[in-house]
Formats: sequence, C-alpha cells, structure tokens
Amino acid sequence: MRAVIMHAPGDVRVEEVPDPVIVEPTDAVIRITATCICGSDLWPYRGVQKVDGPTPMGHEYTGVVEEIGSAVSGIKVGDVVVGSFVASDNTCEICRAGYQSRCVHQVMMGSIGTQSEYARVPLADGTLVRVPGEPTPEQARSLLAASDVLGTGWFAAVAADAGPGRSVAVVGDGAVGLLAILAAKRLGAERIIAMSRHADRQELARGFGATDIVAERGDEGVAKVKELTGGLGAHSTVEAVGTQESMMQAIRSTRAGGHVGFVGVAHGVELDGTELFFSSVHLHGGPAPVRRFLPELVDLIMTDRIDPGVVFDLTLPLDKAAEGYKAMDERRATKVLLTV
Amino acid sequence: MRAVIMHAPGDVRVEEVPDPVIVEPTDAVIRITATCICGSDLWPYRGVQKVDGPTPMGHEYTGVVEEIGSAVSGIKVGDVVVGSFVASDNTCEICRAGYQSRCVHQVMMGSIGTQSEYARVPLADGTLVRVPGEPTPEQARSLLAASDVLGTGWFAAVAADAGPGRSVAVVGDGAVGLLAILAAKRLGAERIIAMSRHADRQELARGFGATDIVAERGDEGVAKVKELTGGLGAHSTVEAVGTQESMMQAIRSTRAGGHVGFVGVAHGVELDGTELFFSSVHLHGGPAPVRRFLPELVDLIMTDRIDPGVVFDLTLPLDKAAEGYKAMDERRATKVLLTV
Repeated sequence: MRAVIMHAPGDVRVEEVPDPVIVEPTDAVIRITATCICGSDLWPYRGVQKVDGPTPMGHEYTGVVEEIGSAVSGIKVGDVVVGSFVASDNTCEICRAGYQSRCVHQVMMGSIGTQSEYARVPLADGTLVRVPGEPTPEQARSLLAASDVLGTGWFAAVAADAGPGRSVAVVGDGAVGLLAILAAKRLGAERIIAMSRHADRQELARGFGATDIVAERGDEGVAKVKELTGGLGAHSTVEAVGTQESMMQAIRSTRAGGHVGFVGVAHGVELDGTELFFSSVHLHGGPAPVRRFLPELVDLIMTDRIDPGVVFDLTLPLDKAAEGYKAMDERRATKVLLTV
Repeated sequence: MRAVIMHAPGDVRVEEVPDPVIVEPTDAVIRITATCICGSDLWPYRGVQKVDGPTPMGHEYTGVVEEIGSAVSGIKVGDVVVGSFVASDNTCEICRAGYQSRCVHQVMMGSIGTQSEYARVPLADGTLVRVPGEPTPEQARSLLAASDVLGTGWFAAVAADAGPGRSVAVVGDGAVGLLAILAAKRLGAERIIAMSRHADRQELARGFGATDIVAERGDEGVAKVKELTGGLGAHSTVEAVGTQESMMQAIRSTRAGGHVGFVGVAHGVELDGTELFFSSVHLHGGPAPVRRFLPELVDLIMTDRIDPGVVFDLTLPLDKAAEGYKAMDERRATKVLLTV
C-alpha cells in the first residue's frame, strides 16, 4: 500500500510499504477513506522533534473495516468507522472514568501511522465507533475532524467547564481552538471570546459562535478579556497552543475560581507555582480523551447539527501529502485533508 | 491592648499597642478569645520572608463582638464569632461563586494581626459567622481550627474531589494535611493514605480516618501509593506543604483524570508543562476560601461531630507567644494555641 513516510525534517514522501495485517485478535484493519495532517506533525517536520529514521505519519482517520481479529465483536467488515488518535480498550478503570487517552493498554495511532491506504487499529472494539448510514462528503469531512481536532477542542471546552452562563475565552485560532469555540457554543456558553489576529480565522471563529474577537496578545490580550468580563476574567479559558506565552495568557485571562482547559502540547512551558497558587484557577488538560465524546460527536455530525469539517481549507490526494505539509508549514493552510 | 509584634526574624514580642477602632461602617471590633500561630508565620520568623519593621502578627481567631459599625446588620455586640484569614464581602460575584478568599474587596487579616486582645474585622457581615450557643473548651479550640487549618484542609479535600468511592492521598502531615484527612473522611472517602514519617502525626492521621500510612517520600512514596491503588495512583491527592518535592509527589501520586488539591503556599515551585500535560490530572488550589465552608464547619463542631481542635498540641497564654513561635520553629509543636 502507499503510505506517508517522513525521512527527515522537511522530507516527506509517499512510498510503497507492506499492507498491515491482523497482529492481535483484538485488532482490525481498516481501509482509510480520509486522513489529515496535524499541527503536531509539524514538530518533526520543522526539526523541533527528532526524526529517528523513516517514520510512518498520521494519527487521524476515518475508514471502512476491511478485516477483524477473532476477538472483535463490536464492529464488522464493511462498517464505516472513526476512531481517535489513541487506541484504547474502553473497559479499564481509567477508560471508564472517561480518560481513554490514558487507557492502561493505550496504543498511540501515531506510532502506526494513518496517512496511508490501510491501517491496523489495535483494541478495535474499544477504539472504533461505527458511523450509522452513508456520510455525505461534508459529513465525511466532519467525521475526520472528530478523530482529533474536534474531539480535542471539545475536551478543552469541557475541561474549561464551558456551559450556560459562562464567559469563555479561547487562546489559539488553529483548528483545535476554532473547534473549541464550536464546542463551547454547543455546551451553552453565552459569551465566547476568540483570541485571534487573522481575519480568515476570525471569520471562522464567528461562524462557530464567537461573540467577541480579541486581537491583542500577552498582557494586552489579558486586559481586553478582563474588560469584556466585568474586570474579573473569563469563567472558562481554553488554551490550544502550548507555548509559555499562551499558557500564561490563558491562566491570567481566567477569574479566580474559573477553569483553564489546556490541550496545546506544552513545549518548554514552566509554570510558576506561586503565580498558579494565587491565580486560584482550576487547571486541567492533556491528550484529549476523544473517544469519550465520539459517539455524541458522530451523532451531531450525522444529523447535521454541527459542521466542524469547514476547518479543512485544503484538500489533496494522499499522493500529494508533501505539498500538504509544506502548505501547513508555510501557514498557507490551517488544516489539510488527504483523500485516499 | 497587648499584641504580638515581630521585629525581625526570631524576634517576637508582646507589646502594648493602641486599641483598634471602627474605621469603615462595615467594620466590627472583636475581643479575641483564642488565636494561634500558623505555619506561614514561620516564614518571616525564619527569615525566608522579609520583615519590614515591627509587624503585627496572626490571622486566625475566634472572639466576641465588642463593637459594630453603622452598616453592620448580620451580627450584634456579644455574639460569639469566627472568621477566616481573609475578610470578604460575601456578596461579590467571586464570593458568590465560592471564592471568598479572592473577594474583589478582600482584606488579609494578616495585615491587621489577630494575635492580640482585640482586632478590627473589615466587612464584618460577610466575614464573621455567628456561633450558636456557648462553646465548650473543646468546641472553642475546634472553632479556632476552623478559622484556617480546618477550612484549608477541607478546601484541599474538596479541590481534590474527595468523596465516596475515592482513594485519597495526603502529602504533608502538618495541621492542614491532618485536617484534610478529617475532611476526606467526612466527605465519604473510603481509602485515605497519609504520607507521614512521624509516629505522633501518624497516630493523629489514623484518628482522623487515615486507612494507610506511607512513610516513604519522593519516587518511593509515589510507588507506594500506586501499589495501594491498583497501580493507577490515587483518585484524589491533597498537597499541603508547598515545596517542589511535595508538589511533584502529589501530581505523580495521582491517576490520569484524578484531582490534585494544593494548599501549601508554593515556595520556589516550578511545574514542567510537559509533565503536567501528560499527567492528565486536574489541578486546583490556592488560598482556601474558608468562608465558603465555615457555616457547615461551625455546625459540625457545635454538634460534636468533628473535633479538629486536637491538632493543637501546645496551649500558651498570649504573653508567652515568643515561646510558642520557638516551639513551632523547633518542631516541638505542630500547632500552638494562644489563649487571650
């Protein structure tokens, strides 16, 4: 089959590799119908994260079940499915508490790669969610978003305790931040403040439900959020970047007793204990347990109540993956969909 | 009146100072009946925190209302009262959300001093809670504990989401840590792991409801907690020390999706963002909003359902405050009560 392989920073190729096979009886092999390039794929692409020889890429996917292991009973060959970037049994104590991204048997799909024609999915019964009916092209695109960026944005909004009567600030206007706005809106938040400097993303933010835009960053951005929230700061703040500046912007934009949901993979972030102590915020985040939300997200998508797929602003065939990486690296695209 | 004044590290004196008077119409003046020395009073005593000239000390207190300002309506002269270490209006948006320690009009009682015969209490209607009936000596002692250490331990347990079906680990065996054990027990936690190396405090911990004692610290302590919790870590962890080691011990002792309540005033603590991200814990803490819990705590104490006052292991008259500071500094006492 064809698969995207990263050889070195900036060197992404589509190559022939062996077809995946069932290894464990709990595995499934799926035919990928759509996959995409993640912001986190840019870390090795840019050389910030080490590339140890040729590496299969990708961890977001929708597909059709091609083959199942002998112990798989919840899905069958031919099912349209979506799963998260972490394979999980969905039965251990941690999964049952809603933290499938930290399942005691977790397998990172990124270690397998899904920017390819087929993929082996471990713990298939726990990992994959069946999609009812035949998705339209728009729904298919949105299901792919559910696999990571929507699920992650949704978790961030939940971790930030977004809901009715709450003011929600969102730091970061990438796909995850934008979809956290969509999530906050669905969760009932009244005031949603998008922190964004880009006109095109501001427009998407408004489309998803943002009521206010703050273009300022750092202390000025914090001051603006306070101004919009009676001087107190937001009840709920989503952090969807992962830098020192964005984390501090999120914490400082939040009122005492408020909640910060952080999902940007922290790179070089150090939090000062004394400042955190006196901030009196709730802080929660980490790799999003997307699986917790998938059944609800699939339902919302298949009944056309949300359309998160609009965050994909460039669609390319798998063979042109290198072009997709380049476009995202050069910020010409927010999120690239690869058709297979 | 007589009051405890700190002149320099190690130099604590009881001196004559002017009696407090009503300054704002929302003030009350109370006659202090009992006060105590806080672990945080040791920071300036040990020279870790700067002492800027003669400083009135103390922020914990029970007393009897002596005089009220013209705008005070909720309490009257002669009422037995208890309040927290932060004066708060209890009506602002932050107070109503349960964060009275971050009231928009907050006044730190430590800036006024309560190790004295009398004290001015700002925002008296919001700050003071009336005690019904006449407390016994044991109840009076426990009410004083409610003013800070019990209220802080209680908040820590609530912030750690302690409750039925939860395993709770407590890092720190000072008065706050010990009373967090009492709180966790009252909140319904089944398994309570006290991390303590001192036989006398282990005994108090068991008396308050600890089911397990872990004497190990750091990585070994974390390993022990995991061993006791099916390899996963505690659902809920209380941090009641405030050092780098204790914070990391608390975070690492907690399972993915679990809650860390931290109330040790962080000194020189730096949290690594990447580790916090992948810990997947909820982190919440800060100066405890003791006022939120005071009515319930007063009720539990006055109906003899809890006896937190046993944490006081040395009682001295106010005049011997210097001896009390010395005893706590030299760890001969956990918590010193000063009778007035």
